[in-house]
Parts: sequence; C-alpha cells; structure tokens
Amino acid sequence: MAYQEAAVVDQLADFVAELHFEDLSEDTVHTVERAFVDTVGVALAGLEEPAGEKACAAFGTTAALFSDVRSANERALAIGTASHALDYDDLSWSMDGHPSVTLVPPLLAVIPETVASGRDIITAFVAGYETECAIAYPVIPTHYKSGWHATATFGVFGATAAVAKLLDLGRTEMREAIAIAASMASGTKENFGSMTKPLHAGLAARSGVTASKLAANGFTGGDSAFEGDAGFWALYADGPEAEFSIGDGLQLEQYGLQLKAYPCCYFTHASIAATEELQENHSIDPNDIDTVEVLTSAAADDALQYDNPDVPSEGKFSMPYVIASTLVTGRVTLSTFEPEHFGNEAVREMMDRVEFIVDENLPYNANSGTVRITTANGTYEKHRKYPPGTYHDPLSKAELHEKFYECTERVIPQETADAVYEQLVSLSEHSSVTGLAIESTGCVESLGDDGIGR
Amino acid sequence: MAYQEAAVVDQLADFVAELHFEDLSEDTVHTVERAFVDTVGVALAGLEEPAGEKACAAFGTTAALFSDVRSANERALAIGTASHALDYDDLSWSMDGHPSVTLVPPLLAVIPETVASGRDIITAFVAGYETECAIAYPVIPTHYKSGWHATATFGVFGATAAVAKLLDLGRTEMREAIAIAASMASGTKENFGSMTKPLHAGLAARSGVTASKLAANGFTGGDSAFEGDAGFWALYADGPEAEFSIGDGLQLEQYGLQLKAYPCCYFTHASIAATEELQENHSIDPNDIDTVEVLTSAAADDALQYDNPDVPSEGKFSMPYVIASTLVTGRVTLSTFEPEHFGNEAVREMMDRVEFIVDENLPYNANSGTVRITTANGTYEKHRKYPPGTYHDPLSKAELHEKFYECTERVIPQETADAVYEQLVSLSEHSSVTGLAIESTGCVESLGDDGIGR
Repeated sequence: MAYQEAAVVDQLADFVAELHFEDLSEDTVHTVERAFVDTVGVALAGLEEPAGEKACAAFGTTAALFSDVRSANERALAIGTASHALDYDDLSWSMDGHPSVTLVPPLLAVIPETVASGRDIITAFVAGYETECAIAYPVIPTHYKSGWHATATFGVFGATAAVAKLLDLGRTEMREAIAIAASMASGTKENFGSMTKPLHAGLAARSGVTASKLAANGFTGGDSAFEGDAGFWALYADGPEAEFSIGDGLQLEQYGLQLKAYPCCYFTHASIAATEELQENHSIDPNDIDTVEVLTSAAADDALQYDNPDVPSEGKFSMPYVIASTLVTGRVTLSTFEPEHFGNEAVREMMDRVEFIVDENLPYNANSGTVRITTANGTYEKHRKYPPGTYHDPLSKAELHEKFYECTERVIPQETADAVYEQLVSLSEHSSVTGLAIESTGCVESLGDDGIGR
Repeated sequence: MAYQEAAVVDQLADFVAELHFEDLSEDTVHTVERAFVDTVGVALAGLEEPAGEKACAAFGTTAALFSDVRSANERALAIGTASHALDYDDLSWSMDGHPSVTLVPPLLAVIPETVASGRDIITAFVAGYETECAIAYPVIPTHYKSGWHATATFGVFGATAAVAKLLDLGRTEMREAIAIAASMASGTKENFGSMTKPLHAGLAARSGVTASKLAANGFTGGDSAFEGDAGFWALYADGPEAEFSIGDGLQLEQYGLQLKAYPCCYFTHASIAATEELQENHSIDPNDIDTVEVLTSAAADDALQYDNPDVPSEGKFSMPYVIASTLVTGRVTLSTFEPEHFGNEAVREMMDRVEFIVDENLPYNANSGTVRITTANGTYEKHRKYPPGTYHDPLSKAELHEKFYECTERVIPQETADAVYEQLVSLSEHSSVTGLAIESTGCVESLGDDGIGR
C-alpha cells in the first residue's frame, strides 16, 4: 500500500511538520518578509478593484478585512481575490504561477485565531511554498499548458500546508489536510480575462483554510491522493512526468520569488525596464523619437494580445501601450491603467511609433526584451535578459517601499501605511501576531467614513 | 465569438431563467417533494456520522443547521456533507451520480435569506437538476471512469443553477454564476473510502452558493467556460463526446430519480430485494440454508471489495455481509452497519454460506441481481433486473415514510419528524419557505440538551 511506502501525503506531512524557523537562512526570512509587504500592499490596492470589492460585498465582509467577524474561510476568499485582482503580485517558476497570493491571504485569514509569532508565520509561509512547488514540479509545464491555472490548482496545497502549519496541526492531521485538499483543486484558464481569474487565488486560499480546519477536527482524506490512478497528477496532467521530492534543499532559497515592478503582464517587464534605462542613459526627448522596436519571445506575443487596447485592462496586455506610456510618462504604475490616464493623447500618438517583434533567437517562453529607439540623433539599443525584481536582481528596498505606497495610498493614510510596512518588513521580530492583526485591521477600519475598503 | 453564437453558458442561463413552476408536471413536482423528504432525512441522520459531525464542528455550525447564524456558504458545506455521509441518498444516471445532495443542501442553506415559496424551491431544484444533467451528458461515462467524482464535478453546476434560480438572479448574473462555477469543480475518486467522499457533496453545495452570490454582486466569469480549449469538457474529460442540449424535455420527467432503499452500495440493492422476496415467498428458515449464490455484474464485483469486512463501513461494500444480514435479520437498515450489530455471530456464520459470482451475461455496469438459495427442501431462485426505488418502481409512500423515520429517529422526536415530513411532502403548497426553515430549525435545535445535532 502506498501509505506504508511513504505516500506523497506522508512525505509532505513529514516535511511540513518538521520544518522549523531555525532551518531558514537569513535571506529566506528576508524574502518572506518582503513577500508579506508586497502581497499586503497589492491586496489593499486590490480591495478597490472590481473583483476585490465584489468578493468582499458578496459575503458581507467589512472593511476590517484582516480580523473580520466573518469566518476565516470567507476572509481568505476575500483577501485572496483582492490580492490577485491587479495581477501585480509575485511569481515563481518553481510553482508555475503566483505563490504569495495563495499563502499570505489564508495566513492573514487565520491569524485572528492563533497566538503564533511572526516567526511562526514565516515558517508557515515557507512550508506552504515548498509544498506547492513540490506538487507542481512533476507536472510542470504540461499542467498549465493544458488549461489549468497553476496558481489555483497548486496553490490550494500551499495554502493548506501553510494554514495547517500555522494552526500547529499534528503530523496525522497535516497529512489528512493535504489529502483532503486534493479534492479541492480547480481553476480553468478559460475564465481568464474575467474576475474569476483573481477569484482563483481566493478559492485556493479558502480551500486551504477549509481543508486544514476539517483535518483539525478529525476529518480524513485518502492515502494516495497524488500518486493514485485517480489522484491529482493523473487527473490534472495525465500523470507525473518527473519525480516527486520534498525537503532536499528549499526552492525558496534556491530560486526565490519574482516581485513585479509594474502592474501589467510580466512579459512586458524586461522591455519596460530596457526602455527606462535607455531614456535615463541617453536623455531621449520623446518628441525626437522616430521608431521604437521591441523584440521579445513568442510566448510574449501569445500573451500580449492587444496592439490597440480599448479598455484599461487590455492595456496591461499591450506592448505598444506600456512602452509608449514609459516613454511619455516616465513610469508604468497603477495610474497608467486608470481610466482617466488611459486616453492620454501623447501616449496614443507614441504607440503608432512602437513596433512589437518576435525575436526568433529567444526560447519560446523567455522573459527577455530588447528595445531599439531610433531618433533624429541616432539609434539606441538595450537588451535585458530578465525583468527587474527577479530573485538575483531584487527590487531595492526603496523600490519595494515605493510600490507599497503606490498600492496603499488610495486605501489607507500614509502614517498607517508606514506602521503596516514597518511591521511586515520586520515580521520575524514580532512575538505576537495578534497585535499585528489588530493593527492591520485598524488601518483599514479607520477608512470607514471615506467609504473605502469595502 | 462563442458567446454570440449561443455559448453553453447562455443556453443554460436561458433555460434556468425561463423555467417556471407551471412548466412542471404533477409527477415532477411529486418527485421533487419526495427528493426533499429523502434528502432531509438522510442529512439529519448524516449529522451523526463522523463526516457530517466533523464538518459542522470544523466551522462552528450549530444544531440550528438550517437557519444557522453562520454564512450560507458554511451551512451548505455542512448540510451537503451530512447528506452524503451515509451514502443513502438518491442517484441519477442522467448526471452519473447523486443529484439531490448537490441541490437540496444549497437550497436549504440560502432559504433563510429568501422570501421564496415552496413552488420556487421546487422550480429551483429542477433548474439545477437539468443543468447538471445537461453538462454531464456530453462526457458520460468517461468523466467518472477517469477518476472524477461526478456528484461533485457536475453537482457544482446544479447547485449553482438552483441557488441562482432561488435567489432570482437576472439572466446576465445567471450566466456569470454558471461560468464562475466552471472554475470550482473538483473531487477525486482517489479520496473515496475517506470522509472526503461526502465532503465532495458539501463542497459542490458551497460552491453553488459562492458562485451565485458572487454573480449576484456583479462578479464575472468567462464566455466559453464549457466548450473552450481550456473549458470544463476539455479539462475534465478530453472534450465532449456527445452534443450538448438543454430544455428539450426534462430529464427529471423522463428518467427521474432512484431513491435508495438500503444504506449500502447500490450494486447490492437488486440482490437484497431478491433475497427479501425469496424469503417472503418461501418462508425460508435461515437454519435450513445450505448455500446462497448471488450473481451480479462485473462492475458490482469491482465496487464490492470486501468479502470479509472488518469495520461497519466496509460492510456497506460487502455482498456476503448484506445478503447474510438480510437472511438473518430480515432487513438491511442503518442499524445493520452500526458497531453493535456488526459483529452479529449469526450473520458472520451465514456469510460463509454466501457465494458472490459475476454473471457474465450482464452488461458491465448492470444493477441486476440473481439470488439462488439452496436448502434441504429445495432450491429457490429470483432475478431482479433493477433495484427497488427506481423511477418506474418507486419506493411506496409507506416505504419513503419508514425510511424517513429510520433516518430521523435518533436525531429528532417523532412528532417533529412528522411535522417536517408533512411540510416536505407537500412542499408545493407552502406559500412561504421562511416558515419551513424555522420549523426545520426548531426541530433540530430542540435536541440541544441531548447533545445531538452538533
């Protein structure tokens, strides 16, 4: 029987149960603290987006999102959906999707029920992250290519392991929680382009809470939920293509997270950064520009469907729009995709000069970008292999802070944002997360009168 | 674009929006009323089973299950799980699984929020039932065979359509709800044998509430959630094998529901009934029996894995156990699978005389059964093509009532059971369901002091 030969659920449960804060390097702790800053920032901003706002409204969740009187399940659903609503949250190739929106929201959702410390939260995040990467690895990239939204389908396991760890479930309950979660994975890419895309993160977060709480109450799952004939890998990817392993070094330590520097499709990021660098290094006057050639991968061409976007949300998937915005306004931020800026005449005019070309020399799904700007004074060219914000070229402390303000400025006052930022960036030093939860709550609650933060 | 050419979500939304109580035959109304009786009965009994009890405990749901202060989502999860905990609920080949546990629980869960009538509830049930059958039809039976639990994966659409109909969503919100639900289907057969099997019904019920409430608040899903390249049929069954249609006659009217007469695997039912008939017609003394041969289909042999069950739950999947119990105790009821009856020596002894044989003349998944009893006085044989309780050979009114008492007797006093039974069996005559909900609630609440109905 698979169980007696170290079933996948058992290997995972052992790993999660035995992971301790002391096992984590300083770098890893720092990475998680930054993930919390980044994810809470985009979640707060996401509360104002339609998907975030409506997910809260649907279940009567109030402004006091992080310690709402509603159940942890519904908090997780609302915070998770809000956190992915802007598609401005971090990525990981190790789990083929967006990890932190499946980990931070469910952890925030159960914090009001725990007496855990900041270190416990960080350890729970890592347990969840490694779990979702380990389950993803045997079926990457077929799973995503075939139509599943990996953020949701792998994310449910990360959410479950993280919550189970924070709730301090025993070894047996841990394995049951993960097995139960195997009956809760879903999320089709066919629903991309609708509010259901960010909902996928919310559903994964909620499922993680549900599975953990059921297991904590003695609920049981199967023995071979992953490797069985009707197990996760068979149903969601025609079986594993590579071997499963967990705990042989941390994925988070080796490959880390990619924090997004711009709130648009990741395939535009290297090109935006290259454009910024050219402008900075050569002081290019937009009026002097004749043509802008942008060369990226074939996958970028597949993803960036809008040469001439009609609505702001399409602008996020338009290379001409984001490059023209960079050249005209100097930066691509949340405001770039707001209705009032979207019609900017100068940007529209600049778009006509931008040409988007597939670079046949690049691998299919490369995130690279080359930008070639031709002006009356000459031609300038810049190639970037990676977007900014990758693990080995992280956002600077100032950039992270700036992004946090950009995200929070319309939701909470700056002094509250400062307090939240300081708490999260030093999460490992907090002995009690209850205090953290209350302060986070307070910051959103204080906005009630402004009608913000539904 | 699929949407403009009557996408599946649009066809479904049209059907659901345009279905009226007046469209339903008297027979259909009667079928639904019986489904409510049967499902509420097994749900009440299921509250005492581990899965039902723990699902309630996990989310602090109280005894007042049907109008609990907790959210409709959590009520649906708890009632849905309880209703399937005994595997005593109805079946439908039209949706390849258990329909009512995906329809009655989510409807009960939202009743406290509506002012609908009994007729509205019945219409909502039919809308949901037809929706889940229509989505199932193009991929039956591959979907179930490949490892998905059809009750859950198709059930989520039934639950969604039913709740959306009861909440009286507009045509547009109806289609969004169904599309959103396409990102919420899950449930692997690999988790069968654990409490997660009944949880699948609870999750489908909860997802139906979630999708409907999101849509009611303006949330959106995709346009081609079923027929698209990454749509439901592609992801969950390698694409449709037959054509989709909805509204060309009602499945419920044509094929109805199969109510279970015994709380064990459906593949044993025809054989149990044949045994009862032989005993009744020939007054066989168990002591005179030499051998009992039971001939059923190969699928029955696959499902009935326990020739010598060790625990009561295995007894439900043991042909020798259930046939021997019929012969010794005269009936197979819930008590047949209780620990105190499970070790019955006479039954154990009789099991040695029962031989379970695959009848090669039957189609693979036939529900038929032939029983041949040899005694000192001669050999008696009886063949039943179908189990009792099929649509064309329904449980009698007395049998339905008896089953309801059997299910409710350890949960509510008989007078309360009578009141609930009378309400449900005449559901179409109730002008307000609020009253119904309150009475149902009261009946369970009144048990608080007995410690039953957690």
